[in-house]
Amino acid sequence: MRTRLIAVVGDGRALEADEARLAEELGAALVRADFGIVCGGLAGVMEAVCRGAVKERGKGQWPPVIGILPSYDLAGGNAYLDVAIPSGMGHARNALVAAAGDAVVCVGGAMGALSEVALARKIGRPVVALRPSGGTAALVAKAIPTVTAVDGVQDAIARLRELLA
Amino acid sequence: MRTRLIAVVGDGRALEADEARLAEELGAALVRADFGIVCGGLAGVMEAVCRGAVKERGKGQWPPVIGILPSYDLAGGNAYLDVAIPSGMGHARNALVAAAGDAVVCVGGAMGALSEVALARKIGRPVVALRPSGGTAALVAKAIPTVTAVDGVQDAIARLRELLA
Amino acid sequence: MRTRLIAVVGDGRALEADEARLAEELGAALVRADFGIVCGGLAGVMEAVCRGAVKERGKGQWPPVIGILPSYDLAGGNAYLDVAIPSGMGHARNALVAAAGDAVVCVGGAMGALSEVALARKIGRPVVALRPSGGTAALVAKAIPTVTAVDGVQDAIARLRELLA
Amino acid sequence: MRTRLIAVVGDGRALEADEARLAEELGAALVRADFGIVCGGLAGVMEAVCRGAVKERGKGQWPPVIGILPSYDLAGGNAYLDVAIPSGMGHARNALVAAAGDAVVCVGGAMGALSEVALARKIGRPVVALRPSGGTAALVAKAIPTVTAVDGVQDAIARLRELLA
Repeated sequence: MRTRLIAVVGDGRALEADEARLAEELGAALVRADFGIVCGGLAGVMEAVCRGAVKERGKGQWPPVIGILPSYDLAGGNAYLDVAIPSGMGHARNALVAAAGDAVVCVGGAMGALSEVALARKIGRPVVALRPSGGTAALVAKAIPTVTAVDGVQDAIARLRELLA
Repeated sequence: MRTRLIAVVGDGRALEADEARLAEELGAALVRADFGIVCGGLAGVMEAVCRGAVKERGKGQWPPVIGILPSYDLAGGNAYLDVAIPSGMGHARNALVAAAGDAVVCVGGAMGALSEVALARKIGRPVVALRPSGGTAALVAKAIPTVTAVDGVQDAIARLRELLA
Repeated sequence: MRTRLIAVVGDGRALEADEARLAEELGAALVRADFGIVCGGLAGVMEAVCRGAVKERGKGQWPPVIGILPSYDLAGGNAYLDVAIPSGMGHARNALVAAAGDAVVCVGGAMGALSEVALARKIGRPVVALRPSGGTAALVAKAIPTVTAVDGVQDAIARLRELLA
Repeated sequence: MRTRLIAVVGDGRALEADEARLAEELGAALVRADFGIVCGGLAGVMEAVCRGAVKERGKGQWPPVIGILPSYDLAGGNAYLDVAIPSGMGHARNALVAAAGDAVVCVGGAMGALSEVALARKIGRPVVALRPSGGTAALVAKAIPTVTAVDGVQDAIARLRELLA
């Protein structure tokens, strides 16, 4: 069976310790649940979720941790990616990240994550927002009725399993 | 001097009469103010804003009314486009619409318009939201501090002139 | 009626005098024939074809001269564009240029132009190659049976009229 | 260390037995050499190279076999993909395939493969053409001096190792 990928979106800037911990915990839980991870491949939430996954199960193992980078630079991604896809498409790669996941999880986030959540819903991908992480996640949990709001990582995994069953 | 383009984003579905009137009025005011128009080229707000512009100054005249279509079908746009650019890129064309405007005006709207507003802010394009039109425009007017909220078309034109001066 | 756009593709580097003259002559002939022009918006053949069109009929007039730029920089195009669409998509914008024309004309060219000719044929747009300009144009005139090879600008215009009739 | 990906491009239509065997052999040799595979994810050469890789080392194992699909349909790829990335970008996804490989191998092919080879060279990715497979591979082996022409799968693997050393 084809590996299920979860797109994780969130802020690319340096994180508060709480948000970094939440994203790492999410990365570890996703690979334990046999979900691959796809993200924008850079820093912040993207890096933390990849680090969590790689700490959990080593690097270059299954399911994969994939980054779709905005530039053409094959070495431009964070250090925890198993696979880097250098799109060269700038912020239009957000549409690729949104489409690449069987579902999307939003952790905090600002304008980039907001575009990915909106594109995911437009395309019809389910979106789960980690409400306590604030930013875009809190906004869309409240403002978009078709977004599934959850209060922690275990709840997120449970809802992803239901949504993709 | 290069023609300034304003990207207009909003709902692609059938409009309430009020919203259609507002979008038409915006289209007419934009070309009167010598702004070209770029949009997603389809129905709803996109069609109404193009219709307003064409009613104001005829078709195939300057400044241009441009639609960036999601499909490859050269004939797929609404009847009021001077120029159709059939991108074939699906919803990723939203990133093109957001980037193509010197500024963006949001009229109502749902997930597509929300993605375009978020991408525009990510790229650094100014965004003006017609607050009374509801939907995405009302949401972003309230939730995104860097969005300029306005209460009518004349106010929108005045703020666009300031933002692009 | 919707304005017909012709995508012109060719080398973005500095041109030999002969090739520059051919591209300028093509730009002038296209707007005289009421074709709009779309190109990648940068230097070399792209700039020469735009310059030829603008010398023929002034700037900001109909039909339009449009550049689809690889970067987000609204000011990044050559000086002869009526409309600049800053895609931010890098070389993936070549697919947009290929799709944006009702037909494509190739003048000289290297790898970028070759990708645009191939994408145009894949999408089903007719391609005309100005054989005497060498480079990609000469290669595809010889190697791709569905490309229409012509020996000069007047011949190109005549064949475009037939192909789009 | 990050997994190296090789982009394999070629004809998406039904293959002659010889070409199918060559593509399968290439897929098997790539994963034996610890290269991941990225392709357009559909039929023809794309399917044959994926099938060869999966026959060699089973499915859902390392290094990965990735397809970047033109549609949004998560189930639209061939049966041998470990990971499907549904881009929704139509033929513009060819630019993604070209950029995603550390290097590109061309097997036969027509206009799609030609666009991918040209984009790869434009971006600066090395291209290896399996000369005996005909079509685009034979054309670019002859016409593009910076393409590395090889006469068989073992030769291709050896040259990829050199090019990426």
